Amino acid sequence: MNITKYRIPYADTDNMGVVYHSNYLIYFEMGRTELMRELGYTYKKMEEDGMYFPVRNVTCNYHASAHYDDIITIETSVCELKNASVTFAYKIFCEDKLLTTGTTKHPLVNYAFKPTRIPQELKNLLQKYVKTEEK
Amino acid sequence: MNITKYRIPYADTDNMGVVYHSNYLIYFEMGRTELMRELGYTYKKMEEDGMYFPVRNVTCNYHASAHYDDIITIETSVCELKNASVTFAYKIFCEDKLLTTGTTKHPLVNYAFKPTRIPQELKNLLQKYVKTEEK
Amino acid sequence: MNITKYRIPYADTDNMGVVYHSNYLIYFEMGRTELMRELGYTYKKMEEDGMYFPVRNVTCNYHASAHYDDIITIETSVCELKNASVTFAYKIFCEDKLLTTGTTKHPLVNYAFKPTRIPQELKNLLQKYVKTEEK
Amino acid sequence: MNITKYRIPYADTDNMGVVYHSNYLIYFEMGRTELMRELGYTYKKMEEDGMYFPVRNVTCNYHASAHYDDIITIETSVCELKNASVTFAYKIFCEDKLLTTGTTKHPLVNYAFKPTRIPQELKNLLQKYVKTEEK
Repeated sequence: MNITKYRIPYADTDNMGVVYHSNYLIYFEMGRTELMRELGYTYKKMEEDGMYFPVRNVTCNYHASAHYDDIITIETSVCELKNASVTFAYKIFCEDKLLTTGTTKHPLVNYAFKPTRIPQELKNLLQKYVKTEEK
Repeated sequence: MNITKYRIPYADTDNMGVVYHSNYLIYFEMGRTELMRELGYTYKKMEEDGMYFPVRNVTCNYHASAHYDDIITIETSVCELKNASVTFAYKIFCEDKLLTTGTTKHPLVNYAFKPTRIPQELKNLLQKYVKTEEK
Repeated sequence: MNITKYRIPYADTDNMGVVYHSNYLIYFEMGRTELMRELGYTYKKMEEDGMYFPVRNVTCNYHASAHYDDIITIETSVCELKNASVTFAYKIFCEDKLLTTGTTKHPLVNYAFKPTRIPQELKNLLQKYVKTEEK
Repeated sequence: MNITKYRIPYADTDNMGVVYHSNYLIYFEMGRTELMRELGYTYKKMEEDGMYFPVRNVTCNYHASAHYDDIITIETSVCELKNASVTFAYKIFCEDKLLTTGTTKHPLVNYAFKPTRIPQELKNLLQKYVKTEEK
């Protein structure tokens, strides 16, 4: 599991005084980017190598709200690892309070956006982040 | 069903040359805002009346990408209408191509963010937008 | 002068109950995109032809605030037209109230991001949008 | 001078492969928020005390582009301190390369959005961040 922190700017809030809901998808992105950096193969390098993880689907459940200037904690793990796709799972907290849970599924595609098998080396790296309860 | 159109600005695109995925949640918001205007009770008026539809959960499936300057069509309907919550369903097209489908579920809450029964009058209005196949 | 309208979504608002200030730069983009469509040479086509108008500088003055669900009117004109750059001027209104004024300056660059002379044909088209008081 | 760092997410990039220009205004916000935290009076506390620094005007000059996954450095100082307004100045770098410079001017307003004198205590704190060359 990767743990990433982020301070909420004014820009992310809305008229209701809380973080606008679509921003949590950006926090998910921050989480999986840092998970990949931590496993030793950054998403930036992956793109330079001609491989992409576009988002195929998203689920997001909102339990409580983040507010301006809160520091949120994004916990990211891998909840499903297949031959040609990976699903990340996220939990976002503010201190001990659970704010949001969600998942994003990503097929691996090549330069021409064609689905591709995940190279064994990358699969091995991602395997380490599969949640224990899922193994 | 409400039909709303939107022109993609440069701001919504990303490094991959397509619309960044979190923006579709904003297009969903545009769709349900226009559905409520069309049924005769705007979301703005609803807030002035002390009622809110915060987002409880989101699902979003990405089938194809929108690009800069595309005009997208957002089709919004009601797919579930309960005593204290409503779920909207969305289909986003570019010309005839289906780009995205999704749902957002919203409890009704009052000024103090306490769950509240949907007033019968509003329920009757929303009922008209329940998808035929769902009735 | 081009006139473009836009309805403010919840996503654009912030904790203060008004539109977050950086969004006006996106409204400026919407204005100049529509000005170029109106003059008959879309920015999308321009990019396909290997020419870009990156933003070199921005000024923006905030006089009053836009709110959720307001329809704003973006008035865009050309305030300076040189051999290798153009400056657009913007006025944003909500009904009769002036909200924002601003400018964006754009050098013309080619595929390799090298500064380039504006083709005479494009210059002639832009010339028509130079504000009368500036001619 | 306050120094704040930020990692560019995919969400901030655009079709041109660089950070979309309006996002720099958000980075400016991050910079002045951290400057105020550093001087010992957070902007969040200031709002709780019924004082606001809305943005009156912005200037921004773009010298070079930030890209996905870059770490940018935001240098924030005070460049003008008056009885009822403050102007912050920003320089954004990626490693040693200067990307962006800019300013934002903020009147102090009270709960009713009426212009107000900056309390002497806050003024003294801000005074410490006035750029040396400006004193």
